[in-house]
Amino acid sequence: MAELVGDDSAKAALLLRAAQADVASGIDALFDQLLPIPADPRSTLYEAMRYAAIGGGKRLRPLLARAAGDLYHVDRALSLRVGAAVEAMHVYSLIHDDLPCMDDDDLRRGKPTVHKAFGEATAVLAGDSLHALAFEWLVDPATHSDPFVRAELIRELAHAAGPAGMAGGQMMDLAAETAEFDLRTVTRLQQLKTGALIGFSVEAGAILARIPEEGRRPLRGYARDIGLAFQIADDIMDVEGDEALAGKALHKDDAAGKATFVTLMGLGRAREQARLLVEQAVDHLANFGEEAALLRAIARYVVERDR
Amino acid sequence: MAELVGDDSAKAALLLRAAQADVASGIDALFDQLLPIPADPRSTLYEAMRYAAIGGGKRLRPLLARAAGDLYHVDRALSLRVGAAVEAMHVYSLIHDDLPCMDDDDLRRGKPTVHKAFGEATAVLAGDSLHALAFEWLVDPATHSDPFVRAELIRELAHAAGPAGMAGGQMMDLAAETAEFDLRTVTRLQQLKTGALIGFSVEAGAILARIPEEGRRPLRGYARDIGLAFQIADDIMDVEGDEALAGKALHKDDAAGKATFVTLMGLGRAREQARLLVEQAVDHLANFGEEAALLRAIARYVVERDR
Repeated sequence: MAELVGDDSAKAALLLRAAQADVASGIDALFDQLLPIPADPRSTLYEAMRYAAIGGGKRLRPLLARAAGDLYHVDRALSLRVGAAVEAMHVYSLIHDDLPCMDDDDLRRGKPTVHKAFGEATAVLAGDSLHALAFEWLVDPATHSDPFVRAELIRELAHAAGPAGMAGGQMMDLAAETAEFDLRTVTRLQQLKTGALIGFSVEAGAILARIPEEGRRPLRGYARDIGLAFQIADDIMDVEGDEALAGKALHKDDAAGKATFVTLMGLGRAREQARLLVEQAVDHLANFGEEAALLRAIARYVVERDR
Repeated sequence: MAELVGDDSAKAALLLRAAQADVASGIDALFDQLLPIPADPRSTLYEAMRYAAIGGGKRLRPLLARAAGDLYHVDRALSLRVGAAVEAMHVYSLIHDDLPCMDDDDLRRGKPTVHKAFGEATAVLAGDSLHALAFEWLVDPATHSDPFVRAELIRELAHAAGPAGMAGGQMMDLAAETAEFDLRTVTRLQQLKTGALIGFSVEAGAILARIPEEGRRPLRGYARDIGLAFQIADDIMDVEGDEALAGKALHKDDAAGKATFVTLMGLGRAREQARLLVEQAVDHLANFGEEAALLRAIARYVVERDR
């Protein structure tokens, strides 16, 4: 039995590794194609976008879009395109988040942040540009032939990125530096800051397959649980992680005196909570068969990704 | 004859003033409704957005959307909603443009800029939030019942806001500080930086009326001409204007050593060029009758607005 579990988990790890490599190279190729450097004074802007977007990151969001799309046999060219849009949104948020007036980070994905490499003004504009491009790519008929599907994707992404989603979560994160947040407020903060885009990524797979809203409930539950597990793991890594492996500055929450899942629950309970959330996420997929193997593997991976 | 012209011009001024007042109050009411302050730590973000968006500005872009929609008897509630989306996009660009790392302005529309009033981090996020909201509002069925129309609006707005439009123009503007731009490059810069959103505003009226692309050509010509005339007038104001009346810092281009229409053409030729562009803009509307009176009045207004 233990061997069987071992076999299963080795199979899941292989499946995950193959999908991740495939998605990563697909996203890089798509960004390369979608961001050609123009022969005019805007070239630096495109170089900055390419610097931030190509060849880095875990591509968790595009991977989730692919895995959710696979449940319904969605054409992978379509789920990859949606993955590029949500990844562009994610990258824009990282560029702005790293700015001196925000988190003031010098290092991201193991290299200098965009404002360090290109200057602050270009960093602001590169973020703004990726933000607009995410919508321009989504609304293109190449994303889906059905304009209702495209409209639904745009509605969900705009909501997930705006003040009721990611940007709102970043605002709460700013407020966390001066306020004392309890576990409920930190949970809400993270659901907005990282959970909203993760939720979009998963749901997008079902939207591409024209699954109506009520049919997406299990996927939403799955996304909510892995989103929180992901963030708890992030907080644990901020305390325990290796900066060289993480490719970014760590131990920042503690220095800023911010409440995190670790400061509020302690390391042991936080780790247990992340584990429980992963099990709960997998339970949401109970009605799916082998086609959900990748989503299950991702759920386990989000809490182990940086070990 | 002179008296007749005088009568006509007085009539146009009245028409413009009434429409401007109506659009301004409509936009304020819509922003007030679309940006309710939440009772959670995101409240400051919404206060910053409301501070920047409500109760200021000339509302040129919503006015253009209304005027172009009026050509085709578009429901004014719809053209107002599109006006709010493009104005949100414009306001976000002003917030980011005023940041210390960009133009570093302390004053906008006669009051402290958003980063002066709320801090830089909140200003970045307020801009990002308005950017996302512009798309969220457009994609809502309240904007138009036809998803093809909504998709077309989003495609055009995303293109006009991104690196091939406004953000690209801002990047060229940054480059203008260190490069020597000729008249052709400055023209292209301004067509992207301000022309793209102005073009969207005008074309949106026709999109709402489902006018196919080839039918929108006169409006596109009109928008291109008034966009340039607007910018030349802006450059003239930067040299000749009164800061108290303008509600923002002036004489900045000269201090930055930037090429403008005035430095490249001289004041006299710049003024003549603006006048010619306005006549050319009006000529594009030759096939329209009385229903284009407001668009004609706006064309004359863009070069006189701050006198």
